[in-house]
Amino acid sequence: MGLEHVLNASSIAVVGASRNETKRGYQAIKILLDEKYEGKIYPVNPREESVMGLPCHAKVSDIEAPVEMALITTPAASIPDILEDCGKKGVAGAVIIAGGFGELGAEGKKLERKMVKTAQKNHIRLIGPNTSGMINLKKHLNVVGLRDVPQGSIALLSQSGNMALTLITEAMIKTQMGFSYYVGVGNEADIRFHEYLKFFTDDPDTRAILMYVEGMRNGRAFLQQAYQTTRVKPVIILKSGRSATGRKSAGSHTGALAGMSEVARTAFQRAGIVVIENSDELMPAAESLANLPPFKNNNVVILADGGGHATIAADELTDLGVNLPPLSEKIQEKLRKILPAAASVRNPIDVAGGGDANPGIFADCAEIILHDHEVGGLLMVGLFGGYSIRFAESLRFVEEDAAHRLGKLVKKTEKPIVMHSLYNFAKPHALELLRYYKIPVQDSLEIACKCVGVLAEYGGYLRGYKAKAKFTFTKGEKSKARGREIFAQARKEGRNSLLENEAKELLSLHGEVVCVDCLATSAEQAVQQANGIDGAVVMKIVSPDILHKSDAGGVELSLETPDEVRQAYKKIMSNAKKFKSDAQIKGILVSPMAAVGQEIIIGTKIDDQFGPILMFGIGGVMVEVLKDVAFRVLPISSRSARRMIDEIKSAILLNGFRGRPPVDKKAIQHLLLAVSEIIGSYPEIQEMDLNPVIAYEHGLNVVDARIILTPEDETRW
Amino acid sequence: MGLEHVLNASSIAVVGASRNETKRGYQAIKILLDEKYEGKIYPVNPREESVMGLPCHAKVSDIEAPVEMALITTPAASIPDILEDCGKKGVAGAVIIAGGFGELGAEGKKLERKMVKTAQKNHIRLIGPNTSGMINLKKHLNVVGLRDVPQGSIALLSQSGNMALTLITEAMIKTQMGFSYYVGVGNEADIRFHEYLKFFTDDPDTRAILMYVEGMRNGRAFLQQAYQTTRVKPVIILKSGRSATGRKSAGSHTGALAGMSEVARTAFQRAGIVVIENSDELMPAAESLANLPPFKNNNVVILADGGGHATIAADELTDLGVNLPPLSEKIQEKLRKILPAAASVRNPIDVAGGGDANPGIFADCAEIILHDHEVGGLLMVGLFGGYSIRFAESLRFVEEDAAHRLGKLVKKTEKPIVMHSLYNFAKPHALELLRYYKIPVQDSLEIACKCVGVLAEYGGYLRGYKAKAKFTFTKGEKSKARGREIFAQARKEGRNSLLENEAKELLSLHGEVVCVDCLATSAEQAVQQANGIDGAVVMKIVSPDILHKSDAGGVELSLETPDEVRQAYKKIMSNAKKFKSDAQIKGILVSPMAAVGQEIIIGTKIDDQFGPILMFGIGGVMVEVLKDVAFRVLPISSRSARRMIDEIKSAILLNGFRGRPPVDKKAIQHLLLAVSEIIGSYPEIQEMDLNPVIAYEHGLNVVDARIILTPEDETRW
Repeated sequence: MGLEHVLNASSIAVVGASRNETKRGYQAIKILLDEKYEGKIYPVNPREESVMGLPCHAKVSDIEAPVEMALITTPAASIPDILEDCGKKGVAGAVIIAGGFGELGAEGKKLERKMVKTAQKNHIRLIGPNTSGMINLKKHLNVVGLRDVPQGSIALLSQSGNMALTLITEAMIKTQMGFSYYVGVGNEADIRFHEYLKFFTDDPDTRAILMYVEGMRNGRAFLQQAYQTTRVKPVIILKSGRSATGRKSAGSHTGALAGMSEVARTAFQRAGIVVIENSDELMPAAESLANLPPFKNNNVVILADGGGHATIAADELTDLGVNLPPLSEKIQEKLRKILPAAASVRNPIDVAGGGDANPGIFADCAEIILHDHEVGGLLMVGLFGGYSIRFAESLRFVEEDAAHRLGKLVKKTEKPIVMHSLYNFAKPHALELLRYYKIPVQDSLEIACKCVGVLAEYGGYLRGYKAKAKFTFTKGEKSKARGREIFAQARKEGRNSLLENEAKELLSLHGEVVCVDCLATSAEQAVQQANGIDGAVVMKIVSPDILHKSDAGGVELSLETPDEVRQAYKKIMSNAKKFKSDAQIKGILVSPMAAVGQEIIIGTKIDDQFGPILMFGIGGVMVEVLKDVAFRVLPISSRSARRMIDEIKSAILLNGFRGRPPVDKKAIQHLLLAVSEIIGSYPEIQEMDLNPVIAYEHGLNVVDARIILTPEDETRW
Repeated sequence: MGLEHVLNASSIAVVGASRNETKRGYQAIKILLDEKYEGKIYPVNPREESVMGLPCHAKVSDIEAPVEMALITTPAASIPDILEDCGKKGVAGAVIIAGGFGELGAEGKKLERKMVKTAQKNHIRLIGPNTSGMINLKKHLNVVGLRDVPQGSIALLSQSGNMALTLITEAMIKTQMGFSYYVGVGNEADIRFHEYLKFFTDDPDTRAILMYVEGMRNGRAFLQQAYQTTRVKPVIILKSGRSATGRKSAGSHTGALAGMSEVARTAFQRAGIVVIENSDELMPAAESLANLPPFKNNNVVILADGGGHATIAADELTDLGVNLPPLSEKIQEKLRKILPAAASVRNPIDVAGGGDANPGIFADCAEIILHDHEVGGLLMVGLFGGYSIRFAESLRFVEEDAAHRLGKLVKKTEKPIVMHSLYNFAKPHALELLRYYKIPVQDSLEIACKCVGVLAEYGGYLRGYKAKAKFTFTKGEKSKARGREIFAQARKEGRNSLLENEAKELLSLHGEVVCVDCLATSAEQAVQQANGIDGAVVMKIVSPDILHKSDAGGVELSLETPDEVRQAYKKIMSNAKKFKSDAQIKGILVSPMAAVGQEIIIGTKIDDQFGPILMFGIGGVMVEVLKDVAFRVLPISSRSARRMIDEIKSAILLNGFRGRPPVDKKAIQHLLLAVSEIIGSYPEIQEMDLNPVIAYEHGLNVVDARIILTPEDETRW
C-alpha cells in the first residue's frame, strides 16, 4: 500500500492519549489542535473519558468513524497488540514513537520482527519505530513535538531528531526556506528510505529532498530510486558514521549497521545525489538547489571587493572542481570602463573599493558577466548589503535597487548567483530582497563557495546523464545452465568454494574472457593440453582437500617440454598422496605460465547496505599499502567498467609507464563485465577473487580465481 | 630600530590631511579624535590652514614638537620625498596606505625599492605599502577606517583589509573577544612578518596571534621566530593561495610570490603554528586557544543530547586526530546512576533526553567526566542554553546555574570545555555566562569540533616540544676547504653544474656517507680501482661536454674482470671522441654496480618563501605518479631526518614489504643529514639531486648525483 495513507492521513487515532501535560500523548493532541490539523483526531486511552475536549476511546477498533492512521505513543512491548486492534479497524498506517527495538540488540530485534509481521498481516505501513514522528506541513498534520516549522518546498528525512531540529532552526533563522514534509525515519523497520524517496519524487510541493542518514537497510533499492529521482529534483545527503566511533554511536542510536564508506559515497554520487560532509553546508546546499537553476556549464566568475575574499574563494572553488576561466578581453574591457584603475578584471574580479560610493556597480558588473554565454554562474563575495552600514546610510536605496536588478537578472539569464556577505548578520533589507528573488545569502565565504559547488555538480550530473545501461547477459541461458551445474556439484560435495578450474570455467562461460586452463586426469592428457598452450605452462593440483597447493608440493612452474610435463604430473600426484593419502583429487590444472606484465586485482564482496560490490586495483603496493581501489555497486555498465579502470590514482601505470607498452584496457573491461554478469547470475556466490590477473599489451592471464559460496542456509543479501 | 615607535607611537603626523569628508586624510584624523587617541595629532597639508580644529603644517619637518610616527595617505609617487622630509624631523616609523607598488609589476617594484632605500637611509620603519593601516587598541591609535573594534587579547596580522573586517565583525557579533593590535601588513616592503611576530610575542597584552597571509617575503626568518613564539603563545594562520587561480589573485592583490604549499603547511605545523584552511574556523580557533588551557592529553569526551550530533561529532574529531576512548567502567557506572535508561554512557555520551526536564545534569555529567584524569577535555554538543526555549521557561535558571558550574569546573580542573549549541543564535543568558567564564560557544557542530582539534593539536605540540637540535657540521673546516676548491674549479671552468665525481666527492666529505667511486684517467688505473670495489663495476665518462652519457656510448655496465674493465675503458674513450672530437674529458668514473634493492630519491630545491628545502621519497611510481614525498625546510636535525623517512605514505616499503629485508634507515638518515650539511655549507648550490639511490639491508649506493650551481651573478635565496 502507498505511503499517502500515513503521510497524508485525513484522520488520526492517538494511542496513549493523555491529560498529563508531560506525556507525548498529551502534547501530540495539543499540537494537532493548535496547528489546526485538517483531519479528524481520535484520542485512544482506556483510562480516560476525554482529552482536551475530544471524546476518548478505549481502543482503536471502538472508533466508529473511519481511521486512516494511528500515532502510537505507548511503550515497545504494547505495540504488536495495538497493531492487531488497528488491523480490525482497517487502519492503513502507524507512526511508532517508542524506542527499545532493533537498536537495543537481539531482544529488541525480535520484538521489532514481531511488530513488523503483525503490521504486514494487517496491511499497516509503519513509520519508525524509535522516531520523533512526522509532519505534513500542508495538512498541518504534525505529530512531532516541534512547533512553528515553516512551510515550504523541502522534504526532510532524518534519522536524528536533533539533526532535524538543527536544520529546521537554521531554515528559520537564516533562510526563507520551509518544508513540505518531515519524516523521522527511525529504525526503518517497515517503510524504507527508498519508499519515502519515491513518495517525495512524486510530490508536486517538494522541490528538493534533504536527508540525514546513519545507515540504510536497503541501499540498493534506494540507489535504484535515486537514479529516477535526481533527474527530476535534487537529493542532498549527509551520511554520518565515517569513523569507527561514529559507527558505534550510530549503532546505539538507530541500530544502523554500517556508516558512510567510500562505497556509499561513490554510489550516491553516481546516482546524482549531492553528498555533503559538513552539516553546516546541508541547509545552504538544499536552499541553493531548491531555488536556483543549476549551472549550464562548469565556469563560474567571482565578483569580490577585496583581494582576501577573492583569493580564498578561488582556492575553495578550485578544490570543489569548478572552473574559473579568465574573462574574455571584450568583457574585461567593459568592466574596466566602470571600475577603478586598481581593480582586477580577470577572474576573480576585485572591484577594489569601486563599490564604496556606489554599490550599484555590483549589479552593473553582474549584468556584463552573466550575459556572456561562456559564464555558467556568479559568486559575489564581500560586503554587499553592508555598504550602507559601513559607509553611508544613503547607500541603502542604491543597494536595494541593485538587489532588485540582481534578482531579475537570475530570472532572465537562468543563471545562478550566490551571495556571500559579511553583513548578513545585520539583516539589511537589500539581502532580504535577494532572498525574495531566491538568491541565497551566506555569512560564510566557504559555504557560499560550497553552494556554487553543488549547483555546478548537480548541473554537471544533469548534463552528463545518460540512461544507466541496463545490464544484459551476454551469454544467456545456455551458459547459465552449465554454470548452475557447477554450483550444484559443489553443493552436492558439501564444498563452500569452487575449485580453481570451476571458477575459471565460469569466467569462460560469461563475457569475452578466455581461460585456456584445462583439467588433466592423466599425464598424457596433460601433455596434450600443454601442447595447445603457447609457451611454458604451470601445473597445479586440484583437490577440495588441498587448499595451500604450494605447501603440499602441488605446483610445478615453467614447464616447456612434453617430458617436463609428464614428470611434473607424476611428481604432483605423488606429493599430493604423501600430503594426504585419502585426498580426493579432481586432476591437475594445466595453465599458461604468466609472462611479466602488469599485475591487477579484481574482487567482489557483499556490502551490508548495498549488496554485491566490485573492486578493481593494481596488485601489490597500490592495493595493499595505498588502498588505491575503485569500487562499484553491481551490476555495472560497460561505461562504468571503463571508468573504474581510469579512476584509480595509479591508472597511469596502465597507460605505458616508463616506456612500457600500455595494457589491454578493453580486456580488463570485459573481465569486469564478466564478473558483474556472474555475480548477477548466481546468487550462490558470496565472494569472488581474481588475484592476481596479469595484464599485457594484448590480453590478460587470470592466474588465480577463487569463488566462495554463500552458506546454504542463508539467503545472500 | 624596534617596532614600538610605529605600533605604540605617542605622536602622529597625518600627511595628506584633508577637510574633504570622502578623503582618507580626513577620515583618519576624525577617527583618531573620535576614539580619543592618547597621543598628539599633527595634520600635514600645504594647502590647508587647519583640519577639524587642529593647525595644519605644510610639511612634517615644519612641526615643532617631536613626531614619532607618520601616517602617509598621499599617492605612491609622492612617498620617497615625504620620507626624506620625515627623516629630517627624526620620525621613526611610517604607515604607507597607497597601493601602486610591487603588486603592479616591474615599475611598481622599482618605486618600492626606492621608497625602502629612502626609509632605511633615514632610519624610518615602514608598515605597508598597500595596507589598510594599523590599530593599537590600548592607545586608541587607530589609522584604519574601522570603528568600534573591540579591545582584547588577540593580535591580528592581515594581508587583506576585508579579511580583517570579517574577523573583527565575527569577534564582535559572535564572541566576547577583542584585539590588542591590528596590522594590515600589505606588501611587507620593509617590516616583515617575523618582526611583527616578535613584537607580539613580547607584548604582555597579547594572548594569541591571528594571521591571514597571502605570501611571505622571508618565510625562513618567520619560521625561526615562530619556534620561539609558539612556546609562549599560540599562533593561528590561514594562508591562502592553494590553487593556481588563488595564487594569481594573491599576486595581483599583495604582490605575493607564492601561495600555500605543502612545504609551507608542514613547516608551519612543525613550528607549532595552528594552520587553518577554512576562514570560518579562524576566529573560533583563536578564541579557544586564547582562552582555554590546551589539552594535557589527546583524549576527549563528547557529551551530547541526541545521537545525530554525537555521531557527526565523533566522525569529525576522529578526522582531526583526537582520541575518543571509551570511559572507564567506574565513570560509566556513575553516569548511569544519573541518566535515563536509554542513554549511552560509553563515549560519545548521549543523555537521550535526560536533560529535557533538568539541564543541570549536563554540569553533573561534566563534573564526573573531567575529574577523571584520563580525560583531557570535554566537547558538549546539542541544545544547552535552549532547554528553557524548547521545553519550559522555568529551566532558564537551571541552565544558568549549570553554566556557572561548568565555568568553575574549567578553572578548577584546568581542562577545556567547548560548547556547541543550536540555540546560540537566540543568545540565551546561560551561554553568555559560559563566555564570561571563557568557554567558547559555537553555532556550528563542525567548528566546535575544530576548536577541540586545535586545543588538542597545540597541547600535543607543547607536550612534545624539544628544542630544535642545532645544525652542526660533522666534518668542519677541513672538509669545507676541499669542498670550496671543487666549486672554485667549476666556476673557473665556467660550468653551471658539478661533475658526477665531484658531487660524489662532496658527499664523502660531509656526513657518514661513503662513495667509493673513483675517477680513472688510464685503463690501468681503472683496473686498479675496480679491484678495490666489491663485485661488478660500472664505468661512466666524465666530461662537461657530454651530458647524456648513455647516448654518447659513455656507459658500460656489469664489468667483472680486469680485462672487461680495460676493454670498457678503451671503448668509452673512443665513443666519446666519436661523439665530440674536442670534448674535454676528465676521466672515467669507476663505480660499484648497483645490486637490486629499494630505489629512493633525495633532492633539494629553493622555495620562494622558505629558501632551501629537502625532499625524500621512494623512486618510481611513488614519487612520479603518487607524489608521495616528505619535505623539510633546511637545515634539518637528526630527528627530522628520521621522521621524514617514516612519514611518507609508502614508508611500509622500507620496512620489509612482502618478505624483503628492511632497508638501512640509519644510512638514509645519514645521507639526508649530509645533504643538509652540504646545502648549508655552500651557498653556491642551487639544486642537488641524488637519483636514484639504492637502499639495501646494509648501506646504500648513490647511483647518480647532480649538483646545479647558482648563477654567479645571483645571490642564492
